[in-house]
Amino acid sequence: MPKTIKIIGIGAGDPDHLTIQAVKALSQVDVVFLMDKGPAKEKLNALRKKICARHMGERAYRFVDAANPEREREGDYLAAVADLNARKQAVFERLIAAELRDGECGAFLVWGDPSLYDSTIRLVEAIAASGRHDLDWDVIPGITSVQALTARHRTTLNAIGRAVTITPGRRLAERFPDGVDSVVVMLDAENAFRRLREDDVDIYWGAYVGTPDEILIAGKLDDVAGEIERVRAEARAAHGWIMDSYLLRRPTVADKTSD
Amino acid sequence: MPKTIKIIGIGAGDPDHLTIQAVKALSQVDVVFLMDKGPAKEKLNALRKKICARHMGERAYRFVDAANPEREREGDYLAAVADLNARKQAVFERLIAAELRDGECGAFLVWGDPSLYDSTIRLVEAIAASGRHDLDWDVIPGITSVQALTARHRTTLNAIGRAVTITPGRRLAERFPDGVDSVVVMLDAENAFRRLREDDVDIYWGAYVGTPDEILIAGKLDDVAGEIERVRAEARAAHGWIMDSYLLRRPTVADKTSD
Repeated sequence: MPKTIKIIGIGAGDPDHLTIQAVKALSQVDVVFLMDKGPAKEKLNALRKKICARHMGERAYRFVDAANPEREREGDYLAAVADLNARKQAVFERLIAAELRDGECGAFLVWGDPSLYDSTIRLVEAIAASGRHDLDWDVIPGITSVQALTARHRTTLNAIGRAVTITPGRRLAERFPDGVDSVVVMLDAENAFRRLREDDVDIYWGAYVGTPDEILIAGKLDDVAGEIERVRAEARAAHGWIMDSYLLRRPTVADKTSD
Repeated sequence: MPKTIKIIGIGAGDPDHLTIQAVKALSQVDVVFLMDKGPAKEKLNALRKKICARHMGERAYRFVDAANPEREREGDYLAAVADLNARKQAVFERLIAAELRDGECGAFLVWGDPSLYDSTIRLVEAIAASGRHDLDWDVIPGITSVQALTARHRTTLNAIGRAVTITPGRRLAERFPDGVDSVVVMLDAENAFRRLREDDVDIYWGAYVGTPDEILIAGKLDDVAGEIERVRAEARAAHGWIMDSYLLRRPTVADKTSD
């Protein structure tokens, strides 16, 4: 009997973001792996446990807590990520080998969607490909913080007929790419929006979106950048961590590729 | 008593993509507006009605069928879209004025997520802003076809630490943008992937993802482009319509902005 791994997107913070597909997947799970670490761990795991209690009902299941290794903050970024992923893979592989019996189903409950800025798919794929385990695995999509953000601001992601870029904060450029009028910034540690050299940009910012701690600010970037910076610093200090993202949008500029 | 409009993302084709938040929203709905047209109308509306039957239970609700106007296929694209949106807004406004009583709640059930390549948010926002109606409105996010696609292919959207572009087919360039290794193409009428002048690109293609008609093809673009083109043409001919999207990904290229 193979072991089964389900990588389940659980949405951006609101337990009601869970899909029916995710609820059905949870009903087959024997072991829920908890991988969080750091100051957000307690709150995130509380929300995971709430989701399980609500949807796994009378089923016998168990939690296995295994703190994910942390990335080295110094030195080369890609090397640090590669090293981190090797260590993470060892942790994941130990969990699958030692904590899951043959025929059992284990789940990773991923914030947002497993496809976006999350390493669980890559790690499980590598372990399955190693041939060292008899493993079935699948992926259940979830609502991302990007979608939660645009829904709460009641705005669209794209301008009509135009492209959208989703980028980590550290890669935000000074200018919008050609043909792109909407840029979503995730994983921004340092107010990257300050770097933008575009006129007349709207920003839609949100933190802890979908949770009782939700904060939303929208407006012309020049008008609200200072407020966002201040509110963000205060929220991070108050909670010990922050989970935020934002959409930057400029008026659609006709370019040479318009037709 | 104001009228309420709920713009509800219902996912990419699998009725189980529906979120608990969407189910709860449906339980408050009196009128479901059906706006589809063309060859896909029957199938899409059947799926909407199935979702309503399953989740709205004993509640008394009614469907209002109002075919959305179609875009002029000839002439200037942006002018045609602007004209189309003006006509759509008139249709939406008539529905809200004539088919919804004060205090009632109407819903638009949007495929995928209302924020991505869908005009419902823009139209309702414009009608609410007109001041001609006493209107409350909100948006419920849904699983996009992008997320359904990556989940079924069990792959990630982004390369580690890198940006992602989502683009309509007509805007796909010959080269990947700087710093971007993943491009998602939606609304592609004409096999735009043929235009790409990049070596060593993987494509993850899917049609009718999440439905019983689902087709998935993945591989090196050079190897599978012909197969995708053929399967796509056959599927479109067989169904009379096609709903597909794809992810293009190249090996991560270190660029001058790497750190």
